[in-house]
Amino acid sequence: MTPLLLNQNSAHDFMSKSIASFARTPSPPYYAVIFTSQRTDSDEQGYGRMAERMVEMASSQPGFLGIETVRGANGFGITVSYWTSEEAIAAWKQHLDHKPAQEAGKRVWYADYEMRIAKVERAYGKRTAS
Amino acid sequence: MTPLLLNQNSAHDFMSKSIASFARTPSPPYYAVIFTSQRTDSDEQGYGRMAERMVEMASSQPGFLGIETVRGANGFGITVSYWTSEEAIAAWKQHLDHKPAQEAGKRVWYADYEMRIAKVERAYGKRTAS
Repeated sequence: MTPLLLNQNSAHDFMSKSIASFARTPSPPYYAVIFTSQRTDSDEQGYGRMAERMVEMASSQPGFLGIETVRGANGFGITVSYWTSEEAIAAWKQHLDHKPAQEAGKRVWYADYEMRIAKVERAYGKRTAS
Repeated sequence: MTPLLLNQNSAHDFMSKSIASFARTPSPPYYAVIFTSQRTDSDEQGYGRMAERMVEMASSQPGFLGIETVRGANGFGITVSYWTSEEAIAAWKQHLDHKPAQEAGKRVWYADYEMRIAKVERAYGKRTAS
């Protein structure tokens, strides 16, 4: 097997240090929230604290399956979180402790973003690739 | 409006320079292929050439809607491509010029990967967020 390079020195996104890995999801069907965003250059510390807290909080929500996230040096990022159902996604969106982060995201942290809710129908990996 | 930070100096993934931006997709439903991968430290040049060529080729396939891709400094990456239908995704997977890249991906470039095919049911952005 080819050795892994795990050179954990991204200065641009603390999340890539703490959770830069694969979500171990069950067999489909399940749901994915694909969140693509362009960071502003504003409030890096506040953003980092919020992002870490939101990942922790989401991880303890009913129906949460996992999360994968990467941000490039240019500030463009993709975060995919996985959930058992649309109801679980809606509950997390409406969670009171999640609202201030959503507001600050719109006002301060993200120049632009797009959120897509999708039903995962099929999945395969390196070990199961055809 | 908050100014964009476009500091295009990621040395780790040429793709983040050329196409690090939002896919302008139509109203749902449509399909997403969520490809998460961990790069090995092998063959950076060959990988870069292949990745650029595959994005160009995919973009000219019937049913292609757009692509978003980010790779972090630790080699973990997420690429999401968008398509009109499952048939369009299957045709691109079976495309003869795509097969050598799939094989080299398994053997050389990726320590691990996961591919998820999902139907996008809802989408909203910063300008349409509720």
